[in-house]
Amino acid sequence: MLYAPPIARLVEELSKLPGIGQKTAQRLTFHLLKVPPEEARALAEAIVEAREKVAFCARCFNFAQGELCEYCSNPRRDPSLVCVVERPQDIVAVERTGEFRGLYHVLGGAISPIDGIGPEDLKVRELLERVRKEGVSEVIMATNPRVEGEATAAYLANLLKPLGVKVTRIASGLPVGGDLEYADEVTLGRALKGRLEL
Amino acid sequence: MLYAPPIARLVEELSKLPGIGQKTAQRLTFHLLKVPPEEARALAEAIVEAREKVAFCARCFNFAQGELCEYCSNPRRDPSLVCVVERPQDIVAVERTGEFRGLYHVLGGAISPIDGIGPEDLKVRELLERVRKEGVSEVIMATNPRVEGEATAAYLANLLKPLGVKVTRIASGLPVGGDLEYADEVTLGRALKGRLEL
Repeated sequence: MLYAPPIARLVEELSKLPGIGQKTAQRLTFHLLKVPPEEARALAEAIVEAREKVAFCARCFNFAQGELCEYCSNPRRDPSLVCVVERPQDIVAVERTGEFRGLYHVLGGAISPIDGIGPEDLKVRELLERVRKEGVSEVIMATNPRVEGEATAAYLANLLKPLGVKVTRIASGLPVGGDLEYADEVTLGRALKGRLEL
Repeated sequence: MLYAPPIARLVEELSKLPGIGQKTAQRLTFHLLKVPPEEARALAEAIVEAREKVAFCARCFNFAQGELCEYCSNPRRDPSLVCVVERPQDIVAVERTGEFRGLYHVLGGAISPIDGIGPEDLKVRELLERVRKEGVSEVIMATNPRVEGEATAAYLANLLKPLGVKVTRIASGLPVGGDLEYADEVTLGRALKGRLEL
């Protein structure tokens, strides 16, 4: 036995976190044993509080502290624009741009037959319902630009267009600050196809 | 505001951990919001339990669940051999070798004038006390092979030798599986100086 049981337990729990291996878990454990007790307790409490107070927004399935998330409950956001993302953290990325003032819809993933994820596992029915009832004029597909995200965007577009709503897809292309020399051919191909007039 | 307050709080607490930046803290937070509640709670409880149940061993200053750590309270360990390390996690490294059956002494760091750490900040007095009272025959200096660790080992050796105890230092040299071509000159110099007869 290398550690006293409470130490071993903390190492084990920390190593369950994604990207945290045995070594890092050990380092974090020894850190938490060393810091002032109130600092360790603050972390423990933050974990419990987050789980107790945070649930899913009833409208868009973002994380929310009340029934609706901060975007859905904000009257200054434009409800006629809906940005569809795979996961709540994607909302944070979109918000950081400062370019979007509409609402969101979190699918909870992307269609992926390999992982056994079909449309019925995602919030697809709820999206169609929103578009029908909430006077949505445009749905922006901001799923990840990978096979699964593209397939999901195409699948949803087919369902949404008959409802008379505009469906758009975020652009793929070279990252700002990127280098043509090092761009992969698929990305550069997309950048060419999606060229804009100057 | 990008996150609901309980989420922001958890991101902030996690990003206080060493080596955990804002991005990783966000990733871990979303993971903890997604896993079954009992898994998140288990981590929180492990943190609290570790802080409540773990203190310092009264004898060697390793982390301990009771008054004495698992090594000091184990009658099958040889109390005449004391291995001096800087931090409790160094004990784990020594134990993994399976080569040592004695006891430990955790200094709590190394002498480092630059960081304002002098002998009085370390468990030096307690080490001398142990050597005087516990029939110690050999003290192995296993401080880190860096400037501070070497200085600390030399300093302690000067204090311990007059007490009639054998003082040794762990060997420096090429790591097993290492490559002469890529060894730095200080390490290779040490390996030469410390050569053993075959």
